[in-house]
Amino acid sequence: MTQNRQVLLASRPSGAVRPENFCIVDAPLPKPGEGQVLLRHHWLSLDPYMRGRMDDARSYAQNAALGEVMVGGIAGEVAESRNPKFKVGDCVIGAQGWQLYSVSDGRGLTRVDTRVAPLSHYLGILGMPGVTAWVGLIDIGKAKAGETVAVSAASGAVGSVVGQLAKLRGCRVVGIAGGAAKCGYCFSELGFDACVDYKAGRLLEDLQEATPQGVDVYFDNVGGEILDAVLTRMNPHSRIPLCGTISQYDKADSHGIRNFRSFLVNRILLQGFIVSDRKAAWPQAIAEITQWVKDGKLKYRESVAQGLDSAPSAFIGMLKGENFGKQVVKLT
Amino acid sequence: MTQNRQVLLASRPSGAVRPENFCIVDAPLPKPGEGQVLLRHHWLSLDPYMRGRMDDARSYAQNAALGEVMVGGIAGEVAESRNPKFKVGDCVIGAQGWQLYSVSDGRGLTRVDTRVAPLSHYLGILGMPGVTAWVGLIDIGKAKAGETVAVSAASGAVGSVVGQLAKLRGCRVVGIAGGAAKCGYCFSELGFDACVDYKAGRLLEDLQEATPQGVDVYFDNVGGEILDAVLTRMNPHSRIPLCGTISQYDKADSHGIRNFRSFLVNRILLQGFIVSDRKAAWPQAIAEITQWVKDGKLKYRESVAQGLDSAPSAFIGMLKGENFGKQVVKLT
Repeated sequence: MTQNRQVLLASRPSGAVRPENFCIVDAPLPKPGEGQVLLRHHWLSLDPYMRGRMDDARSYAQNAALGEVMVGGIAGEVAESRNPKFKVGDCVIGAQGWQLYSVSDGRGLTRVDTRVAPLSHYLGILGMPGVTAWVGLIDIGKAKAGETVAVSAASGAVGSVVGQLAKLRGCRVVGIAGGAAKCGYCFSELGFDACVDYKAGRLLEDLQEATPQGVDVYFDNVGGEILDAVLTRMNPHSRIPLCGTISQYDKADSHGIRNFRSFLVNRILLQGFIVSDRKAAWPQAIAEITQWVKDGKLKYRESVAQGLDSAPSAFIGMLKGENFGKQVVKLT
Repeated sequence: MTQNRQVLLASRPSGAVRPENFCIVDAPLPKPGEGQVLLRHHWLSLDPYMRGRMDDARSYAQNAALGEVMVGGIAGEVAESRNPKFKVGDCVIGAQGWQLYSVSDGRGLTRVDTRVAPLSHYLGILGMPGVTAWVGLIDIGKAKAGETVAVSAASGAVGSVVGQLAKLRGCRVVGIAGGAAKCGYCFSELGFDACVDYKAGRLLEDLQEATPQGVDVYFDNVGGEILDAVLTRMNPHSRIPLCGTISQYDKADSHGIRNFRSFLVNRILLQGFIVSDRKAAWPQAIAEITQWVKDGKLKYRESVAQGLDSAPSAFIGMLKGENFGKQVVKLT
């Protein structure tokens, strides 16, 4: 008999996330009531924001509750429908959590077209990370042709789209990533103008070399020391869309930003943002990205973990930068 | 015979500014050429931004040159005119530097009306500091009735106007200032709802008590530890107009901002700004402030130093927070 299987939040991490912060359980297959659908999940999305949800501290979204299914986006199909708006076989994305099945009344589900792109891509370039890239670069960063755009976590789900969108707009693009393989990918595959390896031990010098005209937009996914270094390169009237601070999650003693005066001297705009605040931008962002994907203008890479049980270790690896491209878990 | 007298930049400070960084000299009275006026300066403005000009480091304006007259705003009158646009006795403000006389072709001079307010007020509430307050609070901060506005250097030339403008807009206003006298002034004289004494050693606790609804706009004049503390009180979608970082000028080892993650979690907008970038805002700002001054709705306080020779020590005192209200030097 088919069963559900779920990853629960067992305990809150103190410092780095560890496997024992999760607990994997079997559960009865949920039954859709009147007006509901049963979803079978094919793909689970793993994203840095989930780390914040594991904490007790105030963050931009409700914390995950202890003993409950971990929050997260999935891509799946309708396995059973008692809702006239959905039929069996419809492909959808939704925030159904780390589990194999769920029921839904349809609210928060989005139907997707697998003729345009494989289903899992709707968790990445054609989903929340893609829109995040678009909103930060264009709505907030207002990147213009001829400007220099720098982006951290450059080979990741968001960063790789930021850099490619910036190239399509005629910007000079400088990635920042960890290790030669990721930097090589950004330069050779994605067409960035340069990519700085922050693990090479010459961050300030390498950044300086890579940004001879300074930086006009810094799309920041990481915060910490890398932000502090990029602040030395910011141009007057430059912009910093702040999308994440992944470098700071696990540190009891966070990195203090020392080059803060650059914000004043260069009249920098910094805007922290969460893509879910910006629903108005979704249609245009998705339409543009979809067109570029259809035209073959955007490359996309995934790290695929196999099976729900591998989700905790894949998540822990992603927080350490071990993934390469968008991290997903194949559930079926 | 009448002579000019000037304060020159003798050397660049290493750390705190010292009297020997300046040098006071007599100089011949300048003679206006065709199309020029001779100005007699009555008041010299002392402002924190001048500290940045004394350094070698890149700042938002050209550095002061060694051996040259210190940069600064003055209020004075036309003593001799060979320019048809000005007549003897006209009162003007301009950026003529730390000296008793200057010549000008009229560019950069603004005629002011001493029937509205005393001449020196055009260096403060009716001049650059007043417009700075208006631009930061209204253009950038977008302070709305019912919101909480916090402002550092609250009793100073800019901060005192920020807080009063915010009160006039129906905001709750919390000042941050050094010492009981300044805090008492903000609370009792200026009508702020609360004022936190950052020297009292309970900054975080006192801020928390003073901002039960959090902070929606933080008008920051100081940076450093105080900014770091206020970051713990910022509300979602709050704004930080960053006007100055006076706390950080003299420190070889600047304070690292540790609570940076608040920018992401609360989706904070930070905008460094310099009022001279925002010429378009001047007419509306000056018109509104002038009307409130005429209506007796804005209080204004000056620290007056006597004579050009006292300018260096008054400036050094201001950087230490020894002034109380707008620091000017009476030259005549």
